[in-house]
Amino acid sequence: MEFLTGVKEKDTLEISGLLKTEAGESVKVNGAVHTIRNMGTVAFVILRKREGLLQGVYEEGAADFDLKDLREADTIEIEGILEKNEKAPGGIEIRMKHLTVLGRPADDMMPLPISKWKLNTSLEAKLNYRSISLRNLRERAKFRIQEGLTRAFRDYLYGQGFTEIHTPKIGARSAEGGANLFRLDYFHRPAVLQQSPQLYKQMMVGVFDRVFETAPVFRAEKHNTKRHLNEYTSLDFEMGYIDSFEEIMAMETGYIQYAMALLAGEYAAELKTLDITLPDAAKIPAVRFDEIKEKVAEKYGRKIKNPFDLEPEEELLISRYALEEWGSDFVFVTHYPSRKRPFYAMDDPADTRYTLSFDLLFRGMEITTGGQRIHDHGMLKDKIAARGMTEDGLEQYLEAFRHGMPPHGGIGIGLERFTMKLAGEDNIRETTLFPRDLSRLEP
Amino acid sequence: MEFLTGVKEKDTLEISGLLKTEAGESVKVNGAVHTIRNMGTVAFVILRKREGLLQGVYEEGAADFDLKDLREADTIEIEGILEKNEKAPGGIEIRMKHLTVLGRPADDMMPLPISKWKLNTSLEAKLNYRSISLRNLRERAKFRIQEGLTRAFRDYLYGQGFTEIHTPKIGARSAEGGANLFRLDYFHRPAVLQQSPQLYKQMMVGVFDRVFETAPVFRAEKHNTKRHLNEYTSLDFEMGYIDSFEEIMAMETGYIQYAMALLAGEYAAELKTLDITLPDAAKIPAVRFDEIKEKVAEKYGRKIKNPFDLEPEEELLISRYALEEWGSDFVFVTHYPSRKRPFYAMDDPADTRYTLSFDLLFRGMEITTGGQRIHDHGMLKDKIAARGMTEDGLEQYLEAFRHGMPPHGGIGIGLERFTMKLAGEDNIRETTLFPRDLSRLEP
Repeated sequence: MEFLTGVKEKDTLEISGLLKTEAGESVKVNGAVHTIRNMGTVAFVILRKREGLLQGVYEEGAADFDLKDLREADTIEIEGILEKNEKAPGGIEIRMKHLTVLGRPADDMMPLPISKWKLNTSLEAKLNYRSISLRNLRERAKFRIQEGLTRAFRDYLYGQGFTEIHTPKIGARSAEGGANLFRLDYFHRPAVLQQSPQLYKQMMVGVFDRVFETAPVFRAEKHNTKRHLNEYTSLDFEMGYIDSFEEIMAMETGYIQYAMALLAGEYAAELKTLDITLPDAAKIPAVRFDEIKEKVAEKYGRKIKNPFDLEPEEELLISRYALEEWGSDFVFVTHYPSRKRPFYAMDDPADTRYTLSFDLLFRGMEITTGGQRIHDHGMLKDKIAARGMTEDGLEQYLEAFRHGMPPHGGIGIGLERFTMKLAGEDNIRETTLFPRDLSRLEP
Repeated sequence: MEFLTGVKEKDTLEISGLLKTEAGESVKVNGAVHTIRNMGTVAFVILRKREGLLQGVYEEGAADFDLKDLREADTIEIEGILEKNEKAPGGIEIRMKHLTVLGRPADDMMPLPISKWKLNTSLEAKLNYRSISLRNLRERAKFRIQEGLTRAFRDYLYGQGFTEIHTPKIGARSAEGGANLFRLDYFHRPAVLQQSPQLYKQMMVGVFDRVFETAPVFRAEKHNTKRHLNEYTSLDFEMGYIDSFEEIMAMETGYIQYAMALLAGEYAAELKTLDITLPDAAKIPAVRFDEIKEKVAEKYGRKIKNPFDLEPEEELLISRYALEEWGSDFVFVTHYPSRKRPFYAMDDPADTRYTLSFDLLFRGMEITTGGQRIHDHGMLKDKIAARGMTEDGLEQYLEAFRHGMPPHGGIGIGLERFTMKLAGEDNIRETTLFPRDLSRLEP
């Protein structure tokens, strides 16, 4: 019997610890052998650690092991002397004295050249060898940025009085409509995977006022595009007691400002690795759907084909317009036509052909859909009836409204898409750890 | 066109804001009408707000509205004068002057008596009316505690150099074996819902060294017990470069200590509402599986029926033993028999009938399974073969090991179960927002 009392400081140092260590001191470090450059009498052993690369220097006679004992892709622990060297990553290197091999690969011929700065490999190969391709520093940095976006979302909303919730992903029926659902057998009953936590988070507004969830959603959409996934991570919030639907956009703006500050502060190394310039989110323009469609048509000489929806090319042009005219990488497009929004969307009382809803476009692509929702029980039932929908499966949802709900609204952000546009990638699979699409179900 | 610049301070105050306001000041607040107690010339209107209850006082003549304009379950905004009153919740009340009704229920007869302190209703009724039952203060407080546990998990691990990951829930095959899987049709291909992120998080140790995920997992287990769900939230971490499997237990101990401190600090009101005494996690005993089985058999005069597993009753007795002998609500049980652990578990080199793995028991129930994993490619292949398993579907997993992996291990915590034991509940559905079990797929 022993007692565990918490985490003990390790005798091995991470890079941040090494940077605080004086030159000449003896240190212990571990890592994966990223590359070995053998220059004859001296060799550089580059270790890959979670905080970046670290240079080990091997000199014959100075170490008590043979360089041949060391192979690329080994995971090792080394003891040595810390030295300053401006040319080395981080300005430090370790003169290697002693080696312990922790893990040895069965095969040190990597299927992909992960130690190259840019992994110039096909997306297909990167996805087929996901556990290897992500060992490349630039590849993995994208997912650190993604972490920052999620972390900021939660931290910001905790600070704004939101409660985190976990809603079920398996359900008897879909939250938002019949199409594009994955269906499964649930102990001999038909069930579906939820496309969104929408109806659940609305019900929880009646409980916690403000709620959020960061969780997977599932869409059985059959299109194979660069911007769609069949499973993705949705950053959702829903807030009650709003004075207007602008308040929802203000909350999202606050989040984005917070996220950009967190990235600039805590993820500076990854931003540099990826050469990302963070967008300025100090003020985000909001413009009506019908208005911006006309502005864009006029400025860029483009005919409006579909007055009720935005085509991908129009999203690009609206973003271009926002950048040129208002100097913003972000733009809220408000008042979407009612017929293109789900039944729970609040119609604009001033003109019920439109809704109090919005999309947020970022660098040419929609990354958020949001808006105010209907909170009156009668109005909700009328809208359901007017759409020719049934109330089947909505009983519990309607029950919340029957017993009082405050004015409310919220958003959903596609995490992988936000990451993609921030990292300057043109395919969403580049910023998805293990993408699921029409053809890809593995790894 | 307008610009969004972030969140503006609202003119309505939350309870924390009211507590900082001087008596006699005019204030605006919103909330849901929890109860109205009409005493004749004066009435008490109790508002339910996200931070708790707030007392409004209605006096005829003092307000510009009629009490009859107000109904239970209304969501309202009121203007009035803040007064101190020791007998009111939080020691403050609002003398109501002006009323705005924000949302009106279609029916103010609640299906459940949510304004009672304890909702003495059957679990069935609470689950059938989930959006209503959770409006009860004690019911909702449990999910605030649950938030604290998740939030602490992430915050603690961020601080320990972990990276958050999002692994896919739909897969071609299961991560851990064939049984108990929900099966679905994925564009005419068979697919399953993942039981755990196990193999993915291990692969990601080769990329980020330390990773965690907080996400749903799916288990098609056919037993209907008080401690099992078919969908639950798993708090998973996996860490590389460990010196021993004790390091994993130390990390979990550090998390629990951090979580208890966060709850004591930020969730004190909810702890009080639920009358929860936080366990002391300063030191957690760890004892071998075979040893504690014997100790318990001896002390409590119980025969060992199955030497390879713990029965629920044994878990209870081990917890009782740990409390009586070592004064701890937690106890790690280590070195589980190899035959009861999955193929990836690292056998104890000192006696390969046992593994370098553990469960954490808390107040009579297992809330965590963890352990060191095999990191050597050959050893892993041998174990797979020895188990009579096929490598089909494990190709990408094995690829990570073929190209070098450090010694590593990790844990999975059942969030709802942890919450259940902390809140002193005896059914896991009490601490699950929308439980999924053999018979329940709605709401």
